[in-house]
Amino acid sequence: MGQNKYTIVEHGNIVSPKGFQAGGLHCGLKKTDRNDLGLVLCDVPAVAAAVYTTNAIQAAPLKVTRDSLQNGTLRAVVVNSGNANACTGKQGEEDAYTMRSLTAAQFGLSAEDIAVASTGVIGELLKMDRVDSGIANLPGQIGGKPESAEAFNQAILTTDLVKKEACVTVTVDGNPVTIAGAAKGSGMIHPNMATMLGFMTTDAVISHDALQQLLRSATDLTFNMITVDGDTSTNDMLLAMASGLADHQVLTPEHKDWDAFAEGFSYVCRVLAKAIARDGEGAKRLIEVTVTGAECDSDAQAIAKTIIGSSLVKSAMFGADANWGRIIAAVGRAGRPVNPETVDIAIGPIAVLEQSRPLPFDEEAALAYLQGDTIHIDVDLHIASGSAVAWGCDLTYDYVRINAAYRT
Amino acid sequence: MGQNKYTIVEHGNIVSPKGFQAGGLHCGLKKTDRNDLGLVLCDVPAVAAAVYTTNAIQAAPLKVTRDSLQNGTLRAVVVNSGNANACTGKQGEEDAYTMRSLTAAQFGLSAEDIAVASTGVIGELLKMDRVDSGIANLPGQIGGKPESAEAFNQAILTTDLVKKEACVTVTVDGNPVTIAGAAKGSGMIHPNMATMLGFMTTDAVISHDALQQLLRSATDLTFNMITVDGDTSTNDMLLAMASGLADHQVLTPEHKDWDAFAEGFSYVCRVLAKAIARDGEGAKRLIEVTVTGAECDSDAQAIAKTIIGSSLVKSAMFGADANWGRIIAAVGRAGRPVNPETVDIAIGPIAVLEQSRPLPFDEEAALAYLQGDTIHIDVDLHIASGSAVAWGCDLTYDYVRINAAYRT
Repeated sequence: MGQNKYTIVEHGNIVSPKGFQAGGLHCGLKKTDRNDLGLVLCDVPAVAAAVYTTNAIQAAPLKVTRDSLQNGTLRAVVVNSGNANACTGKQGEEDAYTMRSLTAAQFGLSAEDIAVASTGVIGELLKMDRVDSGIANLPGQIGGKPESAEAFNQAILTTDLVKKEACVTVTVDGNPVTIAGAAKGSGMIHPNMATMLGFMTTDAVISHDALQQLLRSATDLTFNMITVDGDTSTNDMLLAMASGLADHQVLTPEHKDWDAFAEGFSYVCRVLAKAIARDGEGAKRLIEVTVTGAECDSDAQAIAKTIIGSSLVKSAMFGADANWGRIIAAVGRAGRPVNPETVDIAIGPIAVLEQSRPLPFDEEAALAYLQGDTIHIDVDLHIASGSAVAWGCDLTYDYVRINAAYRT
Repeated sequence: MGQNKYTIVEHGNIVSPKGFQAGGLHCGLKKTDRNDLGLVLCDVPAVAAAVYTTNAIQAAPLKVTRDSLQNGTLRAVVVNSGNANACTGKQGEEDAYTMRSLTAAQFGLSAEDIAVASTGVIGELLKMDRVDSGIANLPGQIGGKPESAEAFNQAILTTDLVKKEACVTVTVDGNPVTIAGAAKGSGMIHPNMATMLGFMTTDAVISHDALQQLLRSATDLTFNMITVDGDTSTNDMLLAMASGLADHQVLTPEHKDWDAFAEGFSYVCRVLAKAIARDGEGAKRLIEVTVTGAECDSDAQAIAKTIIGSSLVKSAMFGADANWGRIIAAVGRAGRPVNPETVDIAIGPIAVLEQSRPLPFDEEAALAYLQGDTIHIDVDLHIASGSAVAWGCDLTYDYVRINAAYRT
């Protein structure tokens, strides 16, 4: 491994890249007084790209955002939490279009300049009077300060306990380019973009095709490799906007500094994805599963996701129990090639299985390791060189408590 | 629907069919004093069939049972609980073969007459001295009384709270034929035979091929349609033995009474499967999901299993929360054709979604219904006529508690 091609910006945020402002406020969609409406605004038309949930039932805002993205540019994205505007029929679709047009009117933009995102309860109509007055108050809340980014970060959260943001700079043609992101997650998180919203901003000069391609490939190795509970939501999207206000030749995969940009972009995605997994509903611990020695990367991904998605593995991690039998059972049921005789498993520094045979290990040391806040599970299949990393969290009493009465 | 072609036998059990004896005892594999070693014995060579877990990592006893079943007949099956004898390498395989030969010696049979099954913790070697003395004591415990069946039923349980058994009679060529079954389940239950053991006995005269085919098709609609936690174990098997001591022409699908026999057989499988789902680890409620109007039965099965497997749906049912948004989100992520505009959902007698639009419903009535011990979820996709039923249970604090420290 060489040196990182990016520099982490401490306290960097979604408005750190040139050309972006943000803000958020409480308009009454959440029962608490937490922010529930937010906006990211670009001073110039931003090159934009998005990836969406694979769920066959898709919420109304996704339709609107797809429509706005047809020309490949955006000026802003308006987001509400507290209500997903999903399974709300024609009225829901109208409401999402209304959110878009109200926002456009407030900021003197055209409707197609605006993307819309929603997260929260499914199947209830948006209280549009509250959305309306909220949007009317947005212009006074928008700015380029850290507090503005913070207000936006808070506005997109649901059962999340902490905000998720990350920021790096990379050097392109000798000049600095900034990349930032903010996200929300928590429940219904599963590979293929489940209840999460993510927003990336950058001042890079980049083509739409290059941005879309990078967003897709970075998502596959980050947001699509996390799971909290195996459920995939109707509302997820990850949206990227590039203001083009940095000073360099347009970025494409052929640009000499493309790798640096792609690495920085992927790093921001990875930080956000891991933060979502760590903040999974009720989670006490982040679990990172690394699978090596698979027939191909795709097999390794499927096996890593099966392990990280196993309720039995997740419960054992909650109990700090080095129950590797559940790990190998998950390996075996992933439906990908496994040699039953050649599996190694380590839990952190502790090797527990070698060539599919149990190793004696120090239970006290294992307990001490498993009580930490990050747990590494490493599986080597010894077949070929396919590898993957997936992230998840433990299954706790609090997950059940939170989800037994989410609506009430 | 016509009349049932079978008659339920109250208190019928695994030794009700002619020719079978059973028994169980405690030999020291469980930490408590509950039975942990059991046997079903047939007085004559029984035509036998089996289906096994689809997990790529398979426990040693499955290899031994496959070997014994090569000639299509069995005299007995010996079962232990408390230790799965899985991931135990060459020694585990030797131990499983030793269980078989010790049992054969005690009962004056040949090794190939005996099937072996194990359930419990993965990755620990069997305490063979205890197995050895247990098997030596089995002959004195075997009999044809209800207490004998009860001792066997207890011997196969792990975290199960209740025994699972069922028995019916059907009429073939004017004479009675009895079909019975016993099973264990609880955790790691998932479509495709996850940590469950099932044993079927019958005095029918039937060919091996016909029995194998019936076992497979009945399993697909019963044991393979239940899930507790999405995990598939290394040890599952369902074994059927037919003594041939009833008085009728040999049963094949061409026999005029085949349908009656198949219906009775499937009924016993269904009762056991539902009992396993209801007794899922920590479960408070049985959930029955019926999907109709799918493009084909296979689509309906996949969608029903996705709903019943959703941690969010399961948590909501624990909380008696009519959160149908999670149900439709599960429908959408099953990866099968769905028309987003035409989905109906009912929770018991309460219609909550019609043509994908929320219906107003009485929350008090829904709460009262959801506090019952069986919850029906009905989904109509209005595409074509594919249908399926799946069974599962709610996700509770107790599931997490049980699985956070299973080994300790």
